[in-house]
Amino acid sequence: MENGNYTPLFNLDSFERKPRFTNGFFQRDVLSVDQFSKDDLDYIFARADEMQAMSRKWGTCDLLKGYTLACVFYEPSTRTSSSFIAAMERLGGKVIPITEGIQYSSVSKGESLIDSMITLEQYCDVIVLRHPEIGSSSTAAKYVKVPIINAGDGAGEHPTQALLDLYTIKSELGTIDGLRISMAGDLRYGRTVHSLTKLLTKYDVSLRYVSPDTLRLPLELMNTLIDKKMDVREFSRVEEVIENTDVLYVTRIQKERFTDLAQYDEVKGYFNIDAELMQKAKEKMIVMHPLPRVGEIAYAIDKDPRAAYFRQVQNGLYIRMALLAAVLGQA
Amino acid sequence: MENGNYTPLFNLDSFERKPRFTNGFFQRDVLSVDQFSKDDLDYIFARADEMQAMSRKWGTCDLLKGYTLACVFYEPSTRTSSSFIAAMERLGGKVIPITEGIQYSSVSKGESLIDSMITLEQYCDVIVLRHPEIGSSSTAAKYVKVPIINAGDGAGEHPTQALLDLYTIKSELGTIDGLRISMAGDLRYGRTVHSLTKLLTKYDVSLRYVSPDTLRLPLELMNTLIDKKMDVREFSRVEEVIENTDVLYVTRIQKERFTDLAQYDEVKGYFNIDAELMQKAKEKMIVMHPLPRVGEIAYAIDKDPRAAYFRQVQNGLYIRMALLAAVLGQA
Amino acid sequence: MENGNYTPLFNLDSFERKPRFTNGFFQRDVLSVDQFSKDDLDYIFARADEMQAMSRKWGTCDLLKGYTLACVFYEPSTRTSSSFIAAMERLGGKVIPITEGIQYSSVSKGESLIDSMITLEQYCDVIVLRHPEIGSSSTAAKYVKVPIINAGDGAGEHPTQALLDLYTIKSELGTIDGLRISMAGDLRYGRTVHSLTKLLTKYDVSLRYVSPDTLRLPLELMNTLIDKKMDVREFSRVEEVIENTDVLYVTRIQKERFTDLAQYDEVKGYFNIDAELMQKAKEKMIVMHPLPRVGEIAYAIDKDPRAAYFRQVQNGLYIRMALLAAVLGQA
Repeated sequence: MENGNYTPLFNLDSFERKPRFTNGFFQRDVLSVDQFSKDDLDYIFARADEMQAMSRKWGTCDLLKGYTLACVFYEPSTRTSSSFIAAMERLGGKVIPITEGIQYSSVSKGESLIDSMITLEQYCDVIVLRHPEIGSSSTAAKYVKVPIINAGDGAGEHPTQALLDLYTIKSELGTIDGLRISMAGDLRYGRTVHSLTKLLTKYDVSLRYVSPDTLRLPLELMNTLIDKKMDVREFSRVEEVIENTDVLYVTRIQKERFTDLAQYDEVKGYFNIDAELMQKAKEKMIVMHPLPRVGEIAYAIDKDPRAAYFRQVQNGLYIRMALLAAVLGQA
Repeated sequence: MENGNYTPLFNLDSFERKPRFTNGFFQRDVLSVDQFSKDDLDYIFARADEMQAMSRKWGTCDLLKGYTLACVFYEPSTRTSSSFIAAMERLGGKVIPITEGIQYSSVSKGESLIDSMITLEQYCDVIVLRHPEIGSSSTAAKYVKVPIINAGDGAGEHPTQALLDLYTIKSELGTIDGLRISMAGDLRYGRTVHSLTKLLTKYDVSLRYVSPDTLRLPLELMNTLIDKKMDVREFSRVEEVIENTDVLYVTRIQKERFTDLAQYDEVKGYFNIDAELMQKAKEKMIVMHPLPRVGEIAYAIDKDPRAAYFRQVQNGLYIRMALLAAVLGQA
Repeated sequence: MENGNYTPLFNLDSFERKPRFTNGFFQRDVLSVDQFSKDDLDYIFARADEMQAMSRKWGTCDLLKGYTLACVFYEPSTRTSSSFIAAMERLGGKVIPITEGIQYSSVSKGESLIDSMITLEQYCDVIVLRHPEIGSSSTAAKYVKVPIINAGDGAGEHPTQALLDLYTIKSELGTIDGLRISMAGDLRYGRTVHSLTKLLTKYDVSLRYVSPDTLRLPLELMNTLIDKKMDVREFSRVEEVIENTDVLYVTRIQKERFTDLAQYDEVKGYFNIDAELMQKAKEKMIVMHPLPRVGEIAYAIDKDPRAAYFRQVQNGLYIRMALLAAVLGQA
């Protein structure tokens, strides 16, 4: 082995990785829907449109070449982790996927979430974090310098889901203002319903909530809507709202939230979006669902052009691409 | 944040991702060995040769730049998933690996395989699927637009294994026609034996089947061979066939297929390909095995140039590269 | 499908992947700290400096374009596997990550470690191996042609950790010779302490070992130090050594090593590096820890510029980048 004077590996003068856009989202954490102004939403949606166009024409690009994402899932969520991984890879960035075994690994040796996050930050430029405890992403963001994107913190928030939901409405119907949006299913525990509702308060929309009695929208959220003088009403049957609805947002009754399974058995199968119901709906209505579904929407509906739930999944990819690029200063 | 007129991120006029070869395999699913004509096999084998040459000279290339693979394993199979991941990465494509936690994730929330597949298809251009149920890949292919490559559907098929087996015979011996091919081991449950047999019926070969009485080739498959007037015979000892054999294809007795462990104990250790046996074999014979082995082939044989089983593993990489490129229109 | 004459996919004359540096580390396994001469260490540390400079300026590069790493973890270790994955990806190489399910997969079908390694070698150019059994990496290296990097073999070695520890001392303090290095914690079972000690015997350093009585440095290692006439002494309290220490290397008391939990309860909490203690330390002292910590270092210390343990984590990335590039002939 030669000693002392080694042939250098790199000519580092040739190029330097630099943020292109330093205002707005650069280095910002994405923790909650509350942090997004209407201008922010417009910006991210415009960038998501570009991501879609790029994906269709090129498939992938080099926008995030030089950047690395640590994608950390303390609880499995194939849909969300796949979406973030695909998003980063399509932008030419690198991914360190950390999912399996995480509970048997450092954490079981007594390591705190904070130490794990600071450790991972040494390897990457941005962290996507899913963790079962409310507030975990916000806590992590306090200690970690790289941007944290909250990919779900238990019963807390899942902001990228709410953004992709809203983006889907805008993409599908061209506007958000003026629409009548009906949400049906588990409105009590359904995190996606709560987050989307919060975002929709920024717009001029009519909100219709449809649920069994035991799964109505939480009191505080309803009071917020009333205080903001939103056009809001509650129902117990989808049939009562279907005719005038522009967006039907259906959610799964989440078995895992019930301590009393008898109560679950009572309400499961409460909804059934089928061909008969769809006949009463507007021609331009869209059906959305955060998936997975467990019987709320009949498979036969998938072929109906109004079934937007799989396009909604794809929109998640574009929204996450836009967010990743934005917090890294490349959009 | 600026509003309205944003600096565009991409100049999309500069290039468009396009299929280069739109005949033959483009957008086709790879579900079963039955779908391959002899011309198809010739084509894939020729492409696999190119993949091998490229891998040796460059290591990786950009042939599938712009394309994304979702590699979905509902049951673990390190060998097969690694092979597909390596194949896609060597071609410059992106991979979303979905293995761990899949059973605890959406599926445990009640999601159907079909919904999972349609969801993943939103993120990718091709899906590799391993699933324990027979017919799962074919079912998925009916609902999903992107090509599905079956990486094993339980006791059903594992077509890429059969293709790499046949490709190995051709690579090693220069031809398939005229060879005497002896298969030994678990011929009853051995999926690889069944699939390779089916492919070999397209060629002018002599087939010798060697197994304990309880693990003989299934009746229907034997009848197919007889109907096709193949030169076929059954034996109970490798010693009886070794001298005139060109290809000795050995399989593991699969403990997990036995409900009666006493029956397993009776037949395990039935075969032992060792130096003594190899002395009786032709100088140009090759030994193949789909791996893992559990004692059927002595470790000492590994150094014998006729031991082709690790080269066979490597051929799997080239075959999968060829197939991925072909279904995406790039080969 | 056309037959016979296919349009070739590649023009293979244009370029050939070749090693740039064929002396020294090229194709060498990294199994133990014992294999590193002082010149070797200087070389790797110089390369690690370059890796750091490149990472800060570019993020990623193409130095290992064309090369593939199989990163095989038979026991989970998020920190180490993430570090190797990030290292390879930053260098433009491909990664086949093999972690989860490995115990349920081929191994449970009875496959030997050797067969698994020879199988994986067919897909890649270098293997990183973590396995719970002592000597597993050395055994694998005997059978496998591609370089093996030992990422921990149970109670055996974890050479890249020792290298990054030593590199951190040099990076932080500019030198190794002349320093007083105090190691505190579990000196009996702490693999990192043993490996770092071995490396430090090549330098002119003073060594101070601080531990409870039941967790003192093993006899043989102490005798080695005495035989080499190292300046070495043992203590039972950090307070006794803190004032003259240049490097305070703290380790976790490893609960999992104790068969008698009563004994663990006696010694846990034995150390507590807190603000009061740090006041007595030199202004230029550094605190190191291989992490995870479980209370040995107060969180308040993290803000002290002398807390080097997270920079130490980052140095692991650069050391692993240097090693990967070196064994592949690209550094």
